[in-house]
Amino acid sequence: MEKRRGRKTAALAMPVYVRSFAAAVGKKEGEGPLKDCFDYISEDSYFGEQSWERAESHLLRQCFMLACDKAKLPPSELDYILSGDLLNQCISSAFAMRDTAVSYFGTYGACSTMAETLSLGAMLIDGGFAGNVCAVTGSHFCTAERQYRFPLEYGGVRTPTSQWTVTGAGAVVLSRGRGAIELTHITTGAITDAGITDVNNMGAAMAPAAFDTLVSHFRDLGRSFADYDAVFTGDLGAVGHDLLQTMLHDAGYDTGVKLMDCGMLIYDRKTQNVNSGGSGCGCSASVLAAHILPAIEKGIWKRVLFAATGALLSTTSAQQGESIPGICHAVVLEREAEEWKS
Amino acid sequence: MEKRRGRKTAALAMPVYVRSFAAAVGKKEGEGPLKDCFDYISEDSYFGEQSWERAESHLLRQCFMLACDKAKLPPSELDYILSGDLLNQCISSAFAMRDTAVSYFGTYGACSTMAETLSLGAMLIDGGFAGNVCAVTGSHFCTAERQYRFPLEYGGVRTPTSQWTVTGAGAVVLSRGRGAIELTHITTGAITDAGITDVNNMGAAMAPAAFDTLVSHFRDLGRSFADYDAVFTGDLGAVGHDLLQTMLHDAGYDTGVKLMDCGMLIYDRKTQNVNSGGSGCGCSASVLAAHILPAIEKGIWKRVLFAATGALLSTTSAQQGESIPGICHAVVLEREAEEWKS
Repeated sequence: MEKRRGRKTAALAMPVYVRSFAAAVGKKEGEGPLKDCFDYISEDSYFGEQSWERAESHLLRQCFMLACDKAKLPPSELDYILSGDLLNQCISSAFAMRDTAVSYFGTYGACSTMAETLSLGAMLIDGGFAGNVCAVTGSHFCTAERQYRFPLEYGGVRTPTSQWTVTGAGAVVLSRGRGAIELTHITTGAITDAGITDVNNMGAAMAPAAFDTLVSHFRDLGRSFADYDAVFTGDLGAVGHDLLQTMLHDAGYDTGVKLMDCGMLIYDRKTQNVNSGGSGCGCSASVLAAHILPAIEKGIWKRVLFAATGALLSTTSAQQGESIPGICHAVVLEREAEEWKS
Repeated sequence: MEKRRGRKTAALAMPVYVRSFAAAVGKKEGEGPLKDCFDYISEDSYFGEQSWERAESHLLRQCFMLACDKAKLPPSELDYILSGDLLNQCISSAFAMRDTAVSYFGTYGACSTMAETLSLGAMLIDGGFAGNVCAVTGSHFCTAERQYRFPLEYGGVRTPTSQWTVTGAGAVVLSRGRGAIELTHITTGAITDAGITDVNNMGAAMAPAAFDTLVSHFRDLGRSFADYDAVFTGDLGAVGHDLLQTMLHDAGYDTGVKLMDCGMLIYDRKTQNVNSGGSGCGCSASVLAAHILPAIEKGIWKRVLFAATGALLSTTSAQQGESIPGICHAVVLEREAEEWKS
């Protein structure tokens, strides 16, 4: 269904369901609060490879294959793969998927990639272009540190507002038709720049984008927090989450206890030394596949809004004094959605 | 219309037309064979900005606004913008679009971005999600040299197989309905890696992907070169173009004089010191908007296959000894397409 001009939310016209999902993570994530929820936990930060970049690629590939296995679909049965990551020129996703022989759409949405690829994938199915697609993304602490910050050996002190890039990946296979978990609505964010320039405070840079997308979503559909069992942002961390709560309260929204952040769920902030929380493409992707989708499948939550957030900066833009644009894409995931019951 | 399993080509079920297009380039491109075709030629490689990265962003923004103006649409009438570029974390497109307030899908397809964004944009319209979208991308010689190769001041000697990154951008507004130029079919490439490791020979790295996408396209639709007035690859350059010709001839295809490459059209290789030809996201994008679309509009060509090519490497992957994966996405552009005449 066409979204109405000036709005950001589209409703699917046909049922699209989550056929399978998988989450694979590193050792630290496997010691956190969700330790019993992941499909695979690696004890080796190199994942058997010779560089961290290859390790990240290995992780994405492994997670993708797990999701295909759980869907009982060989990759050749997929019509499209949609993927992206944080590395320069998105090499971890490209190298992970280079042997699949499947039509490939590369995306760049920073840490919002899981929601972006789910959005595009669902629209390709709803539009009649595909029967099965896979949305996959991930990140690795060591590649992100090397690329965005300092050599690990430097041992830089991290600020209280900083976040810890998740070593993890998530993959979701979407298919045409009805299923236990359906994707019903898509809110595609615009780039939002509130002028934040502190690269150690991504939560503050992304919170305005999350606010804009959540408010657009509620306005477009005439809904509020009361219509959801849970609303997840991607990786705002504690600092960004507090900012978003404040912005929403100031705008008259009662978030109650329903607003949660994947970056605050994946680690124990008291004991795991992650400061404001987790971040990275793999943060919301792995929490989605390990925690959110299983809970919807079990019927614990009936309707969830998954709103992944991304900071669209580079080291060059930061060094040139630019502020940090943010983006947030959201999808509605629902257990046996009402829309298709008639 | 769903593409059949295992195929790479989808046919649109509803008419989607090219509502407007624009090309903006730098001085060198404005001195080349297409000098009379561009909407804007800048004499200043900084485009009035203080860094080359900001210049590239300015160029994309300017080209986007030109296309909106020519479409007589303010950006607020767009349902989605699809964009991407070559810079780390795609900053030139993100910063160019950060003030538009339009739902934004970031893509990464390296130099195939124009075809990727046209593909996704057309599918969003055909799927009923949008009435108007803008696909936009570009590149800048100076940002690409700094990021991928050497400081300009170093004056490195360029190999005969190397290509010159185009300072240029292209933007296309697609809308629902019939028009003089319609987009009818989309072939979405898979990642193809033939094991090329020479970062100064992107043409060789991308030619196998172009071959795979062209052959898939012809096979899926039961077509050949005879069904097209012209077939354009993105930026193979002379070396990659020769390789592709050889591969196609070996596979039994008669390319005739119909197979052309945007990277060989934008510069005069005899006088402009570009070695194998042009490259970069802005190469196929600006040639599409300055040369290909106007010729279809004028009725010089009736049906054209536009197959943009990308090399999915980074400096890190190259330094780690990885080969260079390529990808090629193609769209069919047709003057008053037969499909909708009934």
